[in-house]
Amino acid sequence: MDQRKEVESFFHNLRDRILTSLEELDEGKFHQTHWKREEGGGGVMSLMEGKTFEKVGVNCSTVFGKLDPAFSSQLPGNTTEFFATGISFVAHPYNPMGPTSHMNLRYLETDQWWFGGGADLTPFFPFEEDTQSFHRELKSACDQNNPEYYPKFKKWCDEYFYLPHRKEPRGVGGIFFDYLQNDVQKDFQFVKTVGEAFLKVYPQIIKRRKDLSFTPEQKEHQLYRRGRYVEFNLIYDRGTQFGLKTGGNVEAIFMSLPPTVKWK
Amino acid sequence: MDQRKEVESFFHNLRDRILTSLEELDEGKFHQTHWKREEGGGGVMSLMEGKTFEKVGVNCSTVFGKLDPAFSSQLPGNTTEFFATGISFVAHPYNPMGPTSHMNLRYLETDQWWFGGGADLTPFFPFEEDTQSFHRELKSACDQNNPEYYPKFKKWCDEYFYLPHRKEPRGVGGIFFDYLQNDVQKDFQFVKTVGEAFLKVYPQIIKRRKDLSFTPEQKEHQLYRRGRYVEFNLIYDRGTQFGLKTGGNVEAIFMSLPPTVKWK
Repeated sequence: MDQRKEVESFFHNLRDRILTSLEELDEGKFHQTHWKREEGGGGVMSLMEGKTFEKVGVNCSTVFGKLDPAFSSQLPGNTTEFFATGISFVAHPYNPMGPTSHMNLRYLETDQWWFGGGADLTPFFPFEEDTQSFHRELKSACDQNNPEYYPKFKKWCDEYFYLPHRKEPRGVGGIFFDYLQNDVQKDFQFVKTVGEAFLKVYPQIIKRRKDLSFTPEQKEHQLYRRGRYVEFNLIYDRGTQFGLKTGGNVEAIFMSLPPTVKWK
Repeated sequence: MDQRKEVESFFHNLRDRILTSLEELDEGKFHQTHWKREEGGGGVMSLMEGKTFEKVGVNCSTVFGKLDPAFSSQLPGNTTEFFATGISFVAHPYNPMGPTSHMNLRYLETDQWWFGGGADLTPFFPFEEDTQSFHRELKSACDQNNPEYYPKFKKWCDEYFYLPHRKEPRGVGGIFFDYLQNDVQKDFQFVKTVGEAFLKVYPQIIKRRKDLSFTPEQKEHQLYRRGRYVEFNLIYDRGTQFGLKTGGNVEAIFMSLPPTVKWK
């Protein structure tokens, strides 16, 4: 089997099903933009600015070539050659009762290979029901593969999505994992399960929240809290750093940024 | 003379005159917030959310104590002790015809002392008249002190306020300088002249632009372009990094961020 192709093709298929599911929840349509990376590879950015989703983007990219040596020394392996394929999802619902969410799955190769990824939820007005169903689905995906995964990856998520300058977590967590390189078939199976769990649970949460009433003050609070999302992504996020340092497509890298933000 | 006190007191006086000048241009009033830094020092943040200025902030701070060794190694001197006093100004006019502007003057001590600072202009719809008057005043301030300053500090500004990932300059430039440690009286005199030049020219520019008509599309363009400002400040700005790494007041550090921003 061609591992790279198989993983990439799962990401594309997952993307297509996410698009269909979210278009059903909205009156909008995703628009796709293809982009190429000069040094090798490219991707497709799918973006919808609708009624339910003020902005939702899914980026699939496959990039390869040579890394900057200083950056490559931070990655596993002893070569500057790399290959990376991944899917990255961020949704900013219009209704402040609907939580923002992020999901990313990726496969990398240097002279080693590994998987990484995760999914997390950032509500502005947290509903216990949403937090619980999100974690329950991710836990179930983890448990199907390895009972040690959920506690480990939940903790990793809490540690990763933390804003030291605010002394605040970014949201209510989820899972985060990296450098998964045990058995390529089993690890790939785990990654698939995480993707399926996310596809199942996030649209359900949005369906419950998208038509709730809210006040202008609650909308303002959402715009203000979105600032924290920007701060995290621009100051700390490794995906953003990886993208900028590998000369990725800027529009695709910043697709995660909220549509409207306020800093009071 | 107590060098630290004298510099700090000039910054406070300059701040007070900036507040008076901008309040005259607006129907708003600055509000002041005092903050303390646990490890030593503190500051006063002056903020106005008015009609002419959607948001304008001036922060004066004096902080001291010990630096994180990793960070201290990036600064001149061979000690982790530091003292810093500075004024930092950022204005985001409501009218998209009015340029955003930033000004900062600072005095630092480790086992050496030095001045740094600068002022720059970021128009959304550039008027040649504004760009020219801004540069003319700064050039005149430089020339009064050293004919080599303006070309050198203008270039430094162009290099500093550049977004590599966008391959774009942040605005139309100005001046930027750092590690100025020739003669404390002469260097302080230069810093004063820069402060006075800024106080003279920026309110004049805003006076010319604040009541011009504009379209909703032009306002949208301003909100979109403000995203570049956020990207620069969070990803590259040394002042932001210095603030976050020395445990500064987060609200004061992020005072520079625009009030409303869009990422399309």
